[in-house]
Amino acid sequence: MYLTDRKVAVLGAAGAIGSNIVQDLLSTGTASRIAMYDPFATALQGAAQEIYHCGYPGARVTWTTDLAEALTGATYIITSGGAPRKEGMTREDLLKGNCEIARDLGVAIRAHAPDAELVVVIFNPADITGLAVLVHSGLRPGHVTTLAALDSTRLQSALAAHFDLPQDAVTGCATYGGHGEKMAVVKRGIRIDGVPLVEVLAGRTINGRSLSAEQWKAVKDAVRQGGAAIIKLRGRSSFQSPAHQSVEMLRARIQEGGYPWPCGVFFGEGAFAGVMMAGDAEFTPTGLHGSVPPMDDEDRAELDESYRHICALRDEVIAAGLIPPVAAWTNHNRYL
Amino acid sequence: MYLTDRKVAVLGAAGAIGSNIVQDLLSTGTASRIAMYDPFATALQGAAQEIYHCGYPGARVTWTTDLAEALTGATYIITSGGAPRKEGMTREDLLKGNCEIARDLGVAIRAHAPDAELVVVIFNPADITGLAVLVHSGLRPGHVTTLAALDSTRLQSALAAHFDLPQDAVTGCATYGGHGEKMAVVKRGIRIDGVPLVEVLAGRTINGRSLSAEQWKAVKDAVRQGGAAIIKLRGRSSFQSPAHQSVEMLRARIQEGGYPWPCGVFFGEGAFAGVMMAGDAEFTPTGLHGSVPPMDDEDRAELDESYRHICALRDEVIAAGLIPPVAAWTNHNRYL
Repeated sequence: MYLTDRKVAVLGAAGAIGSNIVQDLLSTGTASRIAMYDPFATALQGAAQEIYHCGYPGARVTWTTDLAEALTGATYIITSGGAPRKEGMTREDLLKGNCEIARDLGVAIRAHAPDAELVVVIFNPADITGLAVLVHSGLRPGHVTTLAALDSTRLQSALAAHFDLPQDAVTGCATYGGHGEKMAVVKRGIRIDGVPLVEVLAGRTINGRSLSAEQWKAVKDAVRQGGAAIIKLRGRSSFQSPAHQSVEMLRARIQEGGYPWPCGVFFGEGAFAGVMMAGDAEFTPTGLHGSVPPMDDEDRAELDESYRHICALRDEVIAAGLIPPVAAWTNHNRYL
Repeated sequence: MYLTDRKVAVLGAAGAIGSNIVQDLLSTGTASRIAMYDPFATALQGAAQEIYHCGYPGARVTWTTDLAEALTGATYIITSGGAPRKEGMTREDLLKGNCEIARDLGVAIRAHAPDAELVVVIFNPADITGLAVLVHSGLRPGHVTTLAALDSTRLQSALAAHFDLPQDAVTGCATYGGHGEKMAVVKRGIRIDGVPLVEVLAGRTINGRSLSAEQWKAVKDAVRQGGAAIIKLRGRSSFQSPAHQSVEMLRARIQEGGYPWPCGVFFGEGAFAGVMMAGDAEFTPTGLHGSVPPMDDEDRAELDESYRHICALRDEVIAAGLIPPVAAWTNHNRYL
């Protein structure tokens, strides 16, 4: 009835994303045994009661304000438990506060859930908080990931709207590197109703509509501002889409594949060494393995800039003492 | 991939319940073609964008501020589009305002969705708003229902907590008649880990715990205050549980059964004639057929009182001119 009966710890479970994750884990038939953790006991109790009142058959949902209790025995961990982004803030504004939370979580995972097989980090800036969790937890790189899909699903829906097509008539949307302002939108694999985007940009029309270079740039800019746009429209940051996509990532971990979007993955070597960033992820029995596909020079320049930006953020966090210097990582995590 | 590709109109889709319904329809694989309606365009656009960013394969989700457009062609309608209950308000405080909304919805359904096969009314007081929709829409009684499960799922989870058992070790929980203060909690069918509640009340212990008459009364009182308790804990009224349970009701309509909780059903004759209230519902190819099970004198007295309370509310709404007098219903709806 559920894909797994292994324990899933949902951290930040009193919040909008976390409580939605719990519901979506159950509604999608993904996981039945869920420990809800949040430091705010009253709101957490209310969120747990709501789940109980949903009446999911076979569900075994508990709640606790004790992080160690939530983590102990957890095979999977999904955490949205950072401070939320408010209107006008960039993801980077949140950097240090959330990296402290991520560091402490990494230490707690090392102590209480050293056998965790997937940790999905959602709170921003996710590449950096995910890296902090990875370094401090001692987990294998393939066992720690971050949510990276939303830029790609936003790109897909923006292109579908432009061409007045059903959303999934647009395929191959993927963004790499960081998120938001500094992400790399790669055009190479995108198809509009089966037609490569590069042909469309060269003048081919789809559904009677063309896409000029200026319009493509406008689409990319809209995608980069996609999170801020939701805050303006709804008066709050995204919560349904990050919740659902993180559940889909867990499904792919359990089923060893089937996840079509980029994931935050650690790159240990090569051109993008020393960061966690959005890449193509292969879901294998031992975890996620990341890569970056071929792309044209324009897109590659975007990705290189995005990588430099992530490195700069990482180094800021290193300078703040929240993660150790790169050369010392292996002392904290033997898999790095 | 989805149970149905027939159109589902979700009304109040910018709100907490409505936007959650849309997500849950998709996450549970219930429906792919969804029209989101709300009078608040900005928030509605934001809610729709969030669903797009979830990236559901095969989804065909549209949004509109035009109720007629949302209803046209809809086979199923789920509406949470009333004014929400605030802390300290009873369901009855909302009576007249929400009955105006329900009357107008009934008229709109008659005009634009006369072939609708299920309308689920969620907004409070649901028995009365559901009745107003039924009378004004001209739909068959079996095609209009209200969400009535939450009192029962709250009872189930409260008893499970008392006995420290998994939630679904408590079976047969059902409340009848109205909601909240005036509902009838029927003990007859309830079993705790397989043991009839009446035996437990007679002194039998389960999992080392007993349940005195006073404790049973306290459980019932807690269930009656269950909605208010959520508002106190979360700072907002329930939204996940009403959303999920209304999706489960739609699944049962499509699959012709499998829904274990009471539903709001119209009683055309018998001891409970002339109201919509929580009863056992049989899901048949032609709609829901309601009944009330045998019960002991104490519980029956509760139900009779609840029925009188619903009749009084109904008559208040009739006096306000929001629905016609009972004897004139058949002029508005030939199935009544």
